[in-house]
Amino acid sequence: MSDTNERPGQLPIGVFDSGLGGLTGVHAIREALPNEDILYLGDTARVPYGTRSPQTVMRYARGCASALVRRGIKMLVVACNTVSAVAIETLQSELAVPVLGVIAPGARAACRSTRSNKIGVIGTTGMIASGAYAREVARVNSTAEVFGVAAPLFVPLVEEGWLEGEVPRLATHRYLTQLANHRIDTLVLGCTHYPMLRVVIEHVAHDVLGPDARVIDSAEATAHELRETIGTAVPRAEEIRQGRLHLMVTDLPQAFAGAAARFLGHAVDDVEVIDL
Amino acid sequence: MSDTNERPGQLPIGVFDSGLGGLTGVHAIREALPNEDILYLGDTARVPYGTRSPQTVMRYARGCASALVRRGIKMLVVACNTVSAVAIETLQSELAVPVLGVIAPGARAACRSTRSNKIGVIGTTGMIASGAYAREVARVNSTAEVFGVAAPLFVPLVEEGWLEGEVPRLATHRYLTQLANHRIDTLVLGCTHYPMLRVVIEHVAHDVLGPDARVIDSAEATAHELRETIGTAVPRAEEIRQGRLHLMVTDLPQAFAGAAARFLGHAVDDVEVIDL
Repeated sequence: MSDTNERPGQLPIGVFDSGLGGLTGVHAIREALPNEDILYLGDTARVPYGTRSPQTVMRYARGCASALVRRGIKMLVVACNTVSAVAIETLQSELAVPVLGVIAPGARAACRSTRSNKIGVIGTTGMIASGAYAREVARVNSTAEVFGVAAPLFVPLVEEGWLEGEVPRLATHRYLTQLANHRIDTLVLGCTHYPMLRVVIEHVAHDVLGPDARVIDSAEATAHELRETIGTAVPRAEEIRQGRLHLMVTDLPQAFAGAAARFLGHAVDDVEVIDL
Repeated sequence: MSDTNERPGQLPIGVFDSGLGGLTGVHAIREALPNEDILYLGDTARVPYGTRSPQTVMRYARGCASALVRRGIKMLVVACNTVSAVAIETLQSELAVPVLGVIAPGARAACRSTRSNKIGVIGTTGMIASGAYAREVARVNSTAEVFGVAAPLFVPLVEEGWLEGEVPRLATHRYLTQLANHRIDTLVLGCTHYPMLRVVIEHVAHDVLGPDARVIDSAEATAHELRETIGTAVPRAEEIRQGRLHLMVTDLPQAFAGAAARFLGHAVDDVEVIDL
């Protein structure tokens, strides 16, 4: 792509999620690519997606993607695991910009990590039911086995800020015990909220899965792939200034700003509300 | 109302909720009024309402109410606490059938129960933020004080079926401890999911709030008021047969049928999907 008047390198990277969770992806992208502008959309009016049918998720995903494309983005990162599981190929075929989901990078990172060829995935009910990580892992390593467990308490635990103590520890213990019999050595956090519980999850994984078990954050894996590939499919931002972050939601901007500060690690002053 | 060709006594009672939880209300109504037909709508495509803005909840509530009225109902029970908190007066003024919410009956039952004039309410974040129970309590007893605590983990605990053991016990303990300082003697379950956790909640309330603390289920209080008043505002069903229950949802009928069986205590074979 040539550097025309539109200066596509100056366009932001679009990121969307069903709500707040995708901000762990934004955080990881900003660490990896500090010069890039990011335009974020959290569909807070219709969160959560993880309990919806694939048809409904597809319809919502198209709405979010179109809203970002209309604003002008150079590429789209689907930070939501549920959308990545259900809609990524459709979005890739329908949109004029490159589209990257979180599942393929998370699956590739898990394949690089595993020694036992047994990979565990925790996520929302819908994401686990989709079998999406197993499909992506099979593309890289046809001998690896993937075992999924739905962990629906984790999202409300994170949104409440209950990130340590007995309740998250016992809930994690209960979920990971279901994976221990399969002798997994790699655990993929298949939901964007879960990295907020990473300290508890790593402690319990050490106890339940063994001292060599590794935890893979799909959002982080996605940001690392993005750093490797940007400049090829789409132009990079110029390295002369800090990238800006613009946040949009479909409902409840104040509540979002408060919680977003915890996800991003800094205060958030300006959240735009849009209608889809 | 006279018994015309339309036989309004034979029309069902319409009940709606953001999803599954309203089935605790259906269960209570069927216990109280076994001859009445019930037409239930769970807005599973847009659940949960408890985290939405009042404007969004109002828009969703109008959609659900209209769908039921179009089918033909003799009255409407709003089983959802969030909708009852935000939209009940608007629905009462806009609809041609009588409308009963769960908050006023729950508040009246709490006022009959309390000796200390200090009432606790647990519910979703949106419901607690609305202050709706405090307003309804003030209409009955202007000297009673109401203290609210949001308990956002309870809905996913119920939907997971984690109804006993350490995780629900510790979560309940953490929520009720916040009410113990206020010396409440009556605790209102201000969310339709919470009666499923009633055994744990009553145990912890006994320990944390004292042996005389009483737990009020708003859905049950609503069903009792309905039994007292039906026949006045709307005609009763004839007492010659068991009432029928017809279930409608806006997404995921199979998942709903499975969980509904736990809420109702019997298998559910036929769930209709409608578009709003």
